[in-house]
Amino acid sequence: MKKSKAMLTGAVEGGGTKFVCAVYEWNDATGIPEQLAVCRIPTTTPEATLHACISFFNEQQKKGLTLEATGIAMFGPLQLDRHDPGWGSTVSTPKPGWSNIPIASPFREATGTEVAIDTDVTAAAMAEYQWGAALHEPVVCYLTVGTGIGLGLLVEGRPLPGPARPEFGHIRIPHASQDLFPGICEFHGDCLEGLACGPALALRWGKPGAALHDNHPAWELEASYLAHACATLMLTLGNPCIVIGGGVGLRQGLLERIRIRTTKLLAGYGSADPEAPNYRIRQAALGEDAGLLGAALLAYRQACAAHTIA
Amino acid sequence: MKKSKAMLTGAVEGGGTKFVCAVYEWNDATGIPEQLAVCRIPTTTPEATLHACISFFNEQQKKGLTLEATGIAMFGPLQLDRHDPGWGSTVSTPKPGWSNIPIASPFREATGTEVAIDTDVTAAAMAEYQWGAALHEPVVCYLTVGTGIGLGLLVEGRPLPGPARPEFGHIRIPHASQDLFPGICEFHGDCLEGLACGPALALRWGKPGAALHDNHPAWELEASYLAHACATLMLTLGNPCIVIGGGVGLRQGLLERIRIRTTKLLAGYGSADPEAPNYRIRQAALGEDAGLLGAALLAYRQACAAHTIA
Repeated sequence: MKKSKAMLTGAVEGGGTKFVCAVYEWNDATGIPEQLAVCRIPTTTPEATLHACISFFNEQQKKGLTLEATGIAMFGPLQLDRHDPGWGSTVSTPKPGWSNIPIASPFREATGTEVAIDTDVTAAAMAEYQWGAALHEPVVCYLTVGTGIGLGLLVEGRPLPGPARPEFGHIRIPHASQDLFPGICEFHGDCLEGLACGPALALRWGKPGAALHDNHPAWELEASYLAHACATLMLTLGNPCIVIGGGVGLRQGLLERIRIRTTKLLAGYGSADPEAPNYRIRQAALGEDAGLLGAALLAYRQACAAHTIA
Repeated sequence: MKKSKAMLTGAVEGGGTKFVCAVYEWNDATGIPEQLAVCRIPTTTPEATLHACISFFNEQQKKGLTLEATGIAMFGPLQLDRHDPGWGSTVSTPKPGWSNIPIASPFREATGTEVAIDTDVTAAAMAEYQWGAALHEPVVCYLTVGTGIGLGLLVEGRPLPGPARPEFGHIRIPHASQDLFPGICEFHGDCLEGLACGPALALRWGKPGAALHDNHPAWELEASYLAHACATLMLTLGNPCIVIGGGVGLRQGLLERIRIRTTKLLAGYGSADPEAPNYRIRQAALGEDAGLLGAALLAYRQACAAHTIA
């Protein structure tokens, strides 16, 4: 039976290999909303990709689905300064052709709704906070390890004030002396991402992580680098909840290695419980859905804010 | 002429070498309050030190000064969990005899006022936010470099939710290959503090920083380590305002070197202005007064909150 008063929102997850567009039906925000329609579009040129996304939303409207707002979880970096004329666009990105592309405005025009946009990792962090592994944690670090390394940081469920988002994948950490691999970051060489993202792992060992067995030395080295990331987050932010996701980050057995090595790095210092890494560092619960659900949540919050003001 | 309705608050800065106690008169929080009385007490045993502090406040009360609240800016780590019976005490600290010492409760008894307590660096950050180099900045990192390295982190003028405070001095950074000094942190060896605090500088070069001339290679190495700290903060927190203080941090010429090296480390990556280090990294404005003024501000906020509730 169709509930007559449920709110509908649009959701877009814009990634480097595909865009996912969906329509969600909300009863309330405590439960995950119901997905009514979805489509996956390969990421090619901005024109072709965005055109296909917009066609999807046009079709939904023709079917009579009326959206209250649309949320976009987009690979960054993005211009998120509301006072900047380029708000809602990508800024310089290494992805060819995708720098300075307006993202929010074409979706606003196509859907006729207000649009909320944030980085994919920020949106994923919001979804993990709302329904996943970081349920209502005051400080959330969603750390994704895959093609790149990204951080979504939330305080009381929201990004820090201001338009900037973390670029945490590019912090420098000690480069292990036994690791002769130089790192692959085109900006920084052996920054965290340069040493520990999926492509770095594949290049260092000659095959992708998925093809390396569970006891391959790759995983102990990977854990040591990600433990530096976790220890840095814990020492900077007090005692945040760290949620690890992404294709590499979710590898079986990796979480336990990261916890052990983070505990060793902290060496019992300070006021935090020395056992903290064992329960503060967690596996992402929403898997591949986190970004799209985060986009839906951005839309839901946008719609609720509009109703409050109205 | 004495204003009859001005609020008086107590302030205590508890440091490793001295405790400073003071009484401040407030007209409003936009201006720095007036210091009516102050005393400096050498830090010896907790008993003797706290006894001397309490005598100071007893004397002030005999003179007819009635305090509305008392603020304490204390070296950490501290138990700041309001639900913990040990709230307001030190927890394990390397300083002999000072672990697990109640700090807030003796001052509450002596002054008959409510007490607000936080770490010295958090309080200093609050003062720099209210009156100093980080005026109303949404995200403030007060980085002090002296006997140790500490971080006070504020979002919209307040510490992150929860009782934990940063222990940022203990992050690991790349140890420069030409630097053969092993680091002096008793927990971590060559963490940031182990490599770059005042005592490490003195031990590496055979004399304290104050005795090293402005063009000594010590300063370029020191700047390179502190630039790692600044780059990590910028990449983790978006585009925070970083305020550098402390005996080593305020060294003439060091700020400029840190800015240049932070810019190099960031290598133009991401959405932030590549010029950002030149205006986001700043020198502390309140100097040695920041901690005590922060303590006064903690008391002021406590008193205002009490009035709001009453």
